[in-house]
Amino acid sequence: MNRRDFDADIMKEIKERWSPRAFAKTPVDPVDIKGVLEAARYAPSCFNEQPWRFILGDSDPIRGQIFGLLTEKNQRWAKRAPVLILIVAQKLFEQTGKDNPWHAFDSGTAWGFLALEAWRRGLITHGMGGFHKKDASALFDLSEHELPIAVIALGYQGDPKVLDEEQQLKEHPSLRRKASESVLIGWNTEWE
Amino acid sequence: MNRRDFDADIMKEIKERWSPRAFAKTPVDPVDIKGVLEAARYAPSCFNEQPWRFILGDSDPIRGQIFGLLTEKNQRWAKRAPVLILIVAQKLFEQTGKDNPWHAFDSGTAWGFLALEAWRRGLITHGMGGFHKKDASALFDLSEHELPIAVIALGYQGDPKVLDEEQQLKEHPSLRRKASESVLIGWNTEWE
Repeated sequence: MNRRDFDADIMKEIKERWSPRAFAKTPVDPVDIKGVLEAARYAPSCFNEQPWRFILGDSDPIRGQIFGLLTEKNQRWAKRAPVLILIVAQKLFEQTGKDNPWHAFDSGTAWGFLALEAWRRGLITHGMGGFHKKDASALFDLSEHELPIAVIALGYQGDPKVLDEEQQLKEHPSLRRKASESVLIGWNTEWE
Repeated sequence: MNRRDFDADIMKEIKERWSPRAFAKTPVDPVDIKGVLEAARYAPSCFNEQPWRFILGDSDPIRGQIFGLLTEKNQRWAKRAPVLILIVAQKLFEQTGKDNPWHAFDSGTAWGFLALEAWRRGLITHGMGGFHKKDASALFDLSEHELPIAVIALGYQGDPKVLDEEQQLKEHPSLRRKASESVLIGWNTEWE
């Protein structure tokens, strides 16, 4: 297993955070659920629109409903996650009713804040794109202007041995391309 | 001026961060530029695609080129920001060439990580949606699969008096709806 490399000293939560699949079944204290939602609340957004919405599954029936939307591959591990949250992006500006081109971008920022606050509290998160979006819209009666965009598993890290063999092999922090490789124009090679 | 309220104890950087317009002209140390890009690097993304790309304007000509794309209203204050970064979302999965529905969402997460790391380092950021996207694509020769999505001003906080009167009045942290108001389904009223 390769280890993540760091070319700069960055904040502890960003440095340490990763997305495990092995969840312990320990329930999450409501204080922590409120805490991660409060962190998402204070994300910046275009015109302060705050287009992120959450469907919070911390217990059945909602948790089970969100679980039922996941792909089989995600269900295999997410069945142990005590909290599942569906992130929904509101596509229109509230004031004007016009398209908000930043609905997904700003919702991603809120998710990032949620993930870091979770890590700070000793919780893990794992974001999933693999779920049935049309079924999500139907199940939760979302309008065409509400886009179900990701499901987040939230809970405590568990023993990797609870995972099947295939998923155990993936149970480590994923690597990244170098920061410089994401700079299309303007990277200064003297910085290396 | 109303003050932000907090219903949970959240991480210092999220609690304190806001988006000032009053920038000092002090240049940003390359160590800090590398640092904020390194924080963005470690954002999570769907299939670890890392769809965020940056055009980094820490000096002319690139800084001036990005500045020229901004709306007049943003130029009025952003002229003092020493670093301007254009965020570009890569719309296709690298491996399959298929549409990545999370290109904007994941790029927003990377921007959130960048903003928090900047704040930790004593820097401020201000994200802008107000810029000419088509001109950006033409100027930087972006393909149809690369979406210019936001411009970030990065630098040090300055004296609000450098702003014009209209923008001075807005120079304070913006408020948010309550966390519970962003939960479409599943908020527990016993938590209040």
